[in-house]
Amino acid sequence: MTDVATLIDGYIATWNEKDPERRLALVAETFTNDADYLDPLMQGAGQDGIDAMIAGVQQQYADYRFELAGAPDAHNDRVRFSWHLVGNGGGAPVATGYDFGTLAEDGRLRSVTGFLETPTQ
Amino acid sequence: MTDVATLIDGYIATWNEKDPERRLALVAETFTNDADYLDPLMQGAGQDGIDAMIAGVQQQYADYRFELAGAPDAHNDRVRFSWHLVGNGGGAPVATGYDFGTLAEDGRLRSVTGFLETPTQ
Repeated sequence: MTDVATLIDGYIATWNEKDPERRLALVAETFTNDADYLDPLMQGAGQDGIDAMIAGVQQQYADYRFELAGAPDAHNDRVRFSWHLVGNGGGAPVATGYDFGTLAEDGRLRSVTGFLETPTQ
Repeated sequence: MTDVATLIDGYIATWNEKDPERRLALVAETFTNDADYLDPLMQGAGQDGIDAMIAGVQQQYADYRFELAGAPDAHNDRVRFSWHLVGNGGGAPVATGYDFGTLAEDGRLRSVTGFLETPTQ
């Protein structure tokens, strides 16, 4: 489970990394080349597509950051975990999400499906 | 959402249907031919494999039934839902699970990944 925990920590770090070069490096560490992401609000295909999608979210939520909510739960090549979107100034989460992922043989994410527990602002 | 709700009701009904002929018919209504199921304890591939897997669970938990816990949540071709395993005589659930599924274009389940919230007995 250590590898999956590290992977998901990296996934959250990717969403929070606002330096374009460092963010793309984190995307490449976290996702396979052909990875895809899909949630009710957005989608991204491939490392570049996912990076661009995350950059857009960061512009929209410039004063917020993602935090992992509890340890990820994994079996076989599947993982699930929850996260909060919280303001940099503190306070209650403005959104909570639940992500489901599949892992490639090299341990990176091959696909992520996100669900939202509460509507974003 | 009506179609997904009906599909997931059928999924739960499939797990509870102990007549072999009716169960296999429900499997065929609920899963595509090439569907697969994977959770921490078991897996099944194809309608026949999934049917055999469910038959095995029914033998192990003869006095229990599955109940959907709340409405399924779906977007695009993805769905998630929770379920309880409860005794036919009542009482608290002995297990709670969380399933993630992908849908085929014909509306049937193409894959299901199960996670367990609490260990089975």
